[in-house]
Amino acid sequence: MANSSKQSLKQPDLNNKPIARLRAILPAWHWLRHYPREHLVGDVLAGFIVAVMLVPQSMAYALLAGLPPEVGLYASIVPLVVYGLLGSSRSLAVGPVAIVSLLVATGVAPLAEAGSPAYVQLAITLALLVGLVQALMGVVRLGFVVNFLSHPVLAGFTTAAALVIGFSQLKHLLGIGIPNLEFFELLRYAATHLAETNRITFALGGGGILILVYFKQVLGGQLRRWGIRPQWILPITKSAPLVIVVLGTALVWSLQLHERFGVAIVGDVPDGLPSLTLPLVDMGVWRQLLPAAVVISFVGYMESIAVAKSLASKRRQKVDADQELLALGAANLGAMFTGGYPVTGGLSRSVVNFEAGANSGLASIMTAVLIALTVIFLTPVFYFLPQAILAAIVIVAVVGLIDVKTFRHIWQYNKADAASFGVTFAAVLLVGVENGILLGMAAAMLLFIWRSSRPHVAVVGRLGSSETYRNVLRHQVQCWPNVVAVRIDESLYFANSKFLEDTVLGCIADRPEVDNFVLIGTAVNFIDASALETLETLRQELKDAGVQLHLAAIKGPVLDRLRDIGFVDHLGEPYIHLTTHDAMKAIGVVVE
Amino acid sequence: MANSSKQSLKQPDLNNKPIARLRAILPAWHWLRHYPREHLVGDVLAGFIVAVMLVPQSMAYALLAGLPPEVGLYASIVPLVVYGLLGSSRSLAVGPVAIVSLLVATGVAPLAEAGSPAYVQLAITLALLVGLVQALMGVVRLGFVVNFLSHPVLAGFTTAAALVIGFSQLKHLLGIGIPNLEFFELLRYAATHLAETNRITFALGGGGILILVYFKQVLGGQLRRWGIRPQWILPITKSAPLVIVVLGTALVWSLQLHERFGVAIVGDVPDGLPSLTLPLVDMGVWRQLLPAAVVISFVGYMESIAVAKSLASKRRQKVDADQELLALGAANLGAMFTGGYPVTGGLSRSVVNFEAGANSGLASIMTAVLIALTVIFLTPVFYFLPQAILAAIVIVAVVGLIDVKTFRHIWQYNKADAASFGVTFAAVLLVGVENGILLGMAAAMLLFIWRSSRPHVAVVGRLGSSETYRNVLRHQVQCWPNVVAVRIDESLYFANSKFLEDTVLGCIADRPEVDNFVLIGTAVNFIDASALETLETLRQELKDAGVQLHLAAIKGPVLDRLRDIGFVDHLGEPYIHLTTHDAMKAIGVVVE
Repeated sequence: MANSSKQSLKQPDLNNKPIARLRAILPAWHWLRHYPREHLVGDVLAGFIVAVMLVPQSMAYALLAGLPPEVGLYASIVPLVVYGLLGSSRSLAVGPVAIVSLLVATGVAPLAEAGSPAYVQLAITLALLVGLVQALMGVVRLGFVVNFLSHPVLAGFTTAAALVIGFSQLKHLLGIGIPNLEFFELLRYAATHLAETNRITFALGGGGILILVYFKQVLGGQLRRWGIRPQWILPITKSAPLVIVVLGTALVWSLQLHERFGVAIVGDVPDGLPSLTLPLVDMGVWRQLLPAAVVISFVGYMESIAVAKSLASKRRQKVDADQELLALGAANLGAMFTGGYPVTGGLSRSVVNFEAGANSGLASIMTAVLIALTVIFLTPVFYFLPQAILAAIVIVAVVGLIDVKTFRHIWQYNKADAASFGVTFAAVLLVGVENGILLGMAAAMLLFIWRSSRPHVAVVGRLGSSETYRNVLRHQVQCWPNVVAVRIDESLYFANSKFLEDTVLGCIADRPEVDNFVLIGTAVNFIDASALETLETLRQELKDAGVQLHLAAIKGPVLDRLRDIGFVDHLGEPYIHLTTHDAMKAIGVVVE
Repeated sequence: MANSSKQSLKQPDLNNKPIARLRAILPAWHWLRHYPREHLVGDVLAGFIVAVMLVPQSMAYALLAGLPPEVGLYASIVPLVVYGLLGSSRSLAVGPVAIVSLLVATGVAPLAEAGSPAYVQLAITLALLVGLVQALMGVVRLGFVVNFLSHPVLAGFTTAAALVIGFSQLKHLLGIGIPNLEFFELLRYAATHLAETNRITFALGGGGILILVYFKQVLGGQLRRWGIRPQWILPITKSAPLVIVVLGTALVWSLQLHERFGVAIVGDVPDGLPSLTLPLVDMGVWRQLLPAAVVISFVGYMESIAVAKSLASKRRQKVDADQELLALGAANLGAMFTGGYPVTGGLSRSVVNFEAGANSGLASIMTAVLIALTVIFLTPVFYFLPQAILAAIVIVAVVGLIDVKTFRHIWQYNKADAASFGVTFAAVLLVGVENGILLGMAAAMLLFIWRSSRPHVAVVGRLGSSETYRNVLRHQVQCWPNVVAVRIDESLYFANSKFLEDTVLGCIADRPEVDNFVLIGTAVNFIDASALETLETLRQELKDAGVQLHLAAIKGPVLDRLRDIGFVDHLGEPYIHLTTHDAMKAIGVVVE
């Protein structure tokens, strides 16, 4: 068993054979040719359940993005087929998601009026740019760039974005006309206009939220106690959005709530499949949309790869980071051609897809077929769908993204990481989602440099009569009055070179009897040009003070560089030692 | 001897005694009370020579800053007295310098017309802000912040700024009216307007440059060969600026070059000491000037502390970084009150001050007295001084700042550092001095993170029958088919956590027979929250693949954290080992 699982971790061996290459680029090649019959039930069932969730969600997220609801549906057809064929994850469910929809809204809103044809055109163009950025990153294997987005920054961003999204739905939930405002202004505006709430709208939305929460938190347990067959529980609990859509639509239609009480409804949704759409080709527009496209590409990919990886590892499968970029990029290009907007892998739908037994991209294609049928036959039904119901779906979805647990965990582990989370969280709320995440990334990098600018330093001594030298503060060790041996636990570079100088000179100044200083390099992974200059200065300053500098246990590549640049010649070969123990023997305090 | 020099490295022991504290803040307290008579000759001579250099230089740099020449002279009186009393360096010569003057020009030019009273007022206000920023950094001991300015970035900045300054003097040297332009536009403008050169002006300036170069490169050797007494050589060679000022002024006056050929002259310089000046108190103006003030504070301090340190170490003296910030800040506040503009320690004048024998702040005060006398009695003389002569002084001064040697050295040592130099150099020329240095700093930080995101990794094996484990690629070592031991030479954090995962899984995938993976932490100085999560994922992924993860030689503080957060519990205490050798014994491949 151990053996088979190890096989699954292996990368495919390409060897430049055309078929092997094709197989690597088109994972569907494999599962289409060798599709095991027993996978079919799982794929079809998973595809069906996800479609049931996706119909209302895709419309809700389109509204969140400032787009007509059908754009959400369109974005849930071709992109799903494309990902099903190209994706390396077997259970990722691609489509419109909340955070990307928010980013689309912030990116496009300054350029056109929400819901207008120009706005839709810009969203389609954004899908093109996101697709190009992701596909390009996949082709040139730039997937690693997303590593600069640290986990605390992503968690802080997601939590703050969830708050922004949740409160952006207040206008639909309460039926108040709230203008586009910054987060805190929106809170104040909503608070001062609460009296204008449309009570019928709020009752519909509030009721929808209660039903969603009931399905999510309570119903599963009840069904199990009632002895319902387990394979039915997941489809039932996950149909909650569909249930409230049906209920809400029926109520509005039967009681004519939209005419009698002014409940806002979705209205006309065009029927039939989307026609071929093309993006704007205008460098000025592209340049304006590019920052949003880059942020959507990064954030969308990060969210997607995280869920794909975690699901794959549960079944000992593997996802390929660069292939995922390619597949997501192609899915976005598919969205662009068919009237959609940027998509990515969604967290909750992917988990459902996985739990419902999705075994291959067929599940994703199945979902797409069902959405296509919905678009062809069911759109007239959505006329009476109240917007408050869609708002309820969005709100319940994003509450799950508020990640207080991660913050507590990070806070307990490491205050600097908690600061990254906090800065990103605050920045997203204060300066907006795009600038917020960029600020958070900058803060994380500065904090990292700050941390390594004040490294841990240990004065070491000999442990018993061994060859081991350890921190004098943590161990009972032997020292000598005329020798100081210091281990600096960090690479030496510009941000800590002054620290290095101060530390060394401080050690010497405190001990007038010292005439040998040993710098131990076990933790020094590189020495940059600034630190090299500091070392040269130190060597001279110590010499002037009558103290001999020794270097001990410098790593091979680091020592090679010091030798090439002439530092070893300046210091003198006899003062370079393989180990701290060798240094002590050379100084003469240890005799062997 | 070794003993006395070690004493000089000692920090003063304050112990909270008021006198000791005062002595620390006011270094002059010491030398004023214990002034050795034999120091007097050196101080007076150095003060005199520096004054001879400073009179023309200060006027030239004021012109470079877009200010009337007398502002340069004013900035060379009170600031020098203040620094003489507060500075911890015994030989730093403070006053107007080229790069700070350029930064003043770029900071103030967008807000007022060069040379106008409003412009002067803004420069005075800038001196206030620089003084406050520096003094504040000194008081709260923020001197370390300047470490984020790496050596290659500073060198790249200085080299590019020298080019910008040099070419900005073309208009004075050629007598062409060149508008304020970006660097490359200025080059093109000058090239297309060369025909308008005022030949007499160019002859004066070009002659001035030749004389300066002659004094600098040739005259010293000639004087030595002619048997001139050594103590006279320095004063003679350093009087070159004064010589060309006298010659140029005499030529213009005697031949009336300004009236007959339109040679631009300095014109009226007010006589008498400056009256008390006060800065603008206007938050709007302050906010506009603050970026320039911060850059001037940083760059001015960096240039100053570098020369102060290098001179101090030659005489086994010590400068105190925070005290220097305080002293420079106070000097700038002094400039603000007396009609001056931002000052800092100048490279060439400080070296001359040192070589001429400056022993204490008295040299600086001596210079200030001589400049004051010049302002009181000699200003009418400067009426006929041609601006081309001042331009010649600036050009020859900044040529020495073009630092090709450092670039070659850095290029040879480390390409990433060379890239920092290159980015800063190019950015200063392309987007201006202020944005250029900020871009350079950002590039240096990104390059550092980039470097540590792809750390050196070594698969290790046992060296003979020792307890030492070394890189299999560098040493002849023993390995076992079912064990992989990997040492990652970097702290684990967000930017390399994907690298970590890929490396570990790659190792396992290549060796299906492996069932124990040992991660060696000798070079891991910390593990951040992102890397912790990756470790948790890895632990699970390896377990799923039938491979046991071991941690070996994790440092005390790092292990403490892993223990606190529960990772050790998840992994299991038996899989944490003090050394790699212990891990091998526990796995059972090594028996002892």
